[in-house]
Amino acid sequence: MKIAISGKGGVGKTTIAAGLIKYFAQKGYQVYAVDADPDTSLGMILGLPEERIGSLKPIVAMRELIAERTGGNGAFFSLNPDVDSILEDYTIRNGNILFLKMGAVKPGGSECYCRENTVLNALVNSIILKRKEIVVMDMSAGIEHLTRGTARGVDIMLIVTEPTLVSIQTARTIQKLATELGISKIKFVANKIRQSKDEEFILSHLPPGDVIGLIPFQTEILDQAAGFNSEQSFTAAGITELATRLLN
Amino acid sequence: MKIAISGKGGVGKTTIAAGLIKYFAQKGYQVYAVDADPDTSLGMILGLPEERIGSLKPIVAMRELIAERTGGNGAFFSLNPDVDSILEDYTIRNGNILFLKMGAVKPGGSECYCRENTVLNALVNSIILKRKEIVVMDMSAGIEHLTRGTARGVDIMLIVTEPTLVSIQTARTIQKLATELGISKIKFVANKIRQSKDEEFILSHLPPGDVIGLIPFQTEILDQAAGFNSEQSFTAAGITELATRLLN
Repeated sequence: MKIAISGKGGVGKTTIAAGLIKYFAQKGYQVYAVDADPDTSLGMILGLPEERIGSLKPIVAMRELIAERTGGNGAFFSLNPDVDSILEDYTIRNGNILFLKMGAVKPGGSECYCRENTVLNALVNSIILKRKEIVVMDMSAGIEHLTRGTARGVDIMLIVTEPTLVSIQTARTIQKLATELGISKIKFVANKIRQSKDEEFILSHLPPGDVIGLIPFQTEILDQAAGFNSEQSFTAAGITELATRLLN
Repeated sequence: MKIAISGKGGVGKTTIAAGLIKYFAQKGYQVYAVDADPDTSLGMILGLPEERIGSLKPIVAMRELIAERTGGNGAFFSLNPDVDSILEDYTIRNGNILFLKMGAVKPGGSECYCRENTVLNALVNSIILKRKEIVVMDMSAGIEHLTRGTARGVDIMLIVTEPTLVSIQTARTIQKLATELGISKIKFVANKIRQSKDEEFILSHLPPGDVIGLIPFQTEILDQAAGFNSEQSFTAAGITELATRLLN
C-alpha cells in the first residue's frame, strides 16, 4: 500500500504521518517513510538524529538508479535495502522504518524543487511493494505537489483538515486535484477536534462517508513539539483506529 | 515599505498578514495585499467575496505589462490603480486595501508554479512605492519560495514561528535563505504563545533582539476560522504593537 498525506500547512500532516508510520512498524510492516517536503521535519518527529538526516542522500540523487532499474521505460522494480548496498546511502533505518527524503535545502534564490518532485514521482510509480510493505509519504503543505503530480501512483490520498473554513477549502481543492491525478481512494482525516461542534462542522462540510478519522486536539502534541515532553512513545489518540481502517 | 511574511505551514502567516493589512489600511495607508500562495486564503480571511477572488486575474498574467513598463531591463515603475484602468482586472479594492493574487489553481498533474513566482518577483522588484504605500505579501508555507527567490527585493522579511522545535527549525532555515537573498531586515514574530514558558522557549531559541512580536494564543481566531464567530472587526492581540514597530 502506498499512502500520501496532504493538507493545508499546519493541520498536522507530519504528526499523523509519523503516528501511522510507527504503528505500521510496530505491527511488523516494513515502512518506507518518505519526507516529500524540502523543509524537512518528518525525520525529526520520528526521532532520527538531525545530523544523520542532514547528511542523507536525497531521492533526487537516485535518478540514474531509477532509470537503470526501469530501463528508462516506466517499468517496475522492488527495493530491497537489506541486500542492496546502494540503497544504504539513501535510507536511515530505525527498526522496521526506512526513512528517505526527497531533497535537501538549497541556497536562497538558487532554484525550484521541480526535479525533486519528478524523481520522487518516478520512484513512487515504479517500486513494487512486497507483502507487508507500506510507503507513507508526508507531502509538502498546500497544492503545488498536486499540480506537479508528485503523488500520482499512490493507492490512497489522505487529506488532513482542521475544523476551519480555510483548511476545508484547501482539502476540497486537494480532493479535486487528486481526482484529476487519477488517485482512486481519497479520504479525509479531521484533526484538532476540540469539541462536539468541531466534529459537526467537519461532517457538515465534507461527505461523512469520506471522513475516515477524527483525531482529538491534544496539548501533549504541542508540548512534545516544544520539547517539554521527552516521552518518545507518545502516540496521538485516534491514530490506532485510523491505521486499522487503512489496513482493512 | 515592502514586507514579506513567511514561516512553516500553520504558524499563522495569513492571520498576521491580514491583521497588519487591516491595521495599515485603517491608518490611511494604501496597502497592496498580495497572496503569494496558489492555495489562496488571504482574500478569504480579508473578507473578500469568494467568487470575486476566483475570477480575479492573477499577477502571472501581468507579465507583458511588467515587461512593457520596465522596458524589459529591470527598471522601475509605480502602480496607480486609480488612474490605471488596466490594473482593475488584477485587483480587488476594499477601502484602502488592494488585493492581488499570484496565481490560480491549475489542474492536477499539469505543472509547477515557477512562472508565477518569477513574475511576482519581477513585480515586487520593479514597483516604486509612494509615501503611505505598503506592500504586504503572504508567502506560501515552507522554503521553496525562498530557494526560488520570490521575495528578493522586499525591505523586511517577517518570519512567523510557533513555540515548537520544528517551527523554529524552519524559521532558522528561512532566516539563512533570506540572508542569502540579500534581504537586509529579517525579523521573527512568535505566534500562539500560551504560557510564559512558551515565551521563554522562543527567546532561548532565537536572538531576543530579532523577535519583534509576541502574539498570544487566541481561541477567538480558531472560532473565527471555523465560522463560529462572524465578528469581522476582530483583530488579534499583539498586532497593533507589531504594526507600530514596523512603521517606526
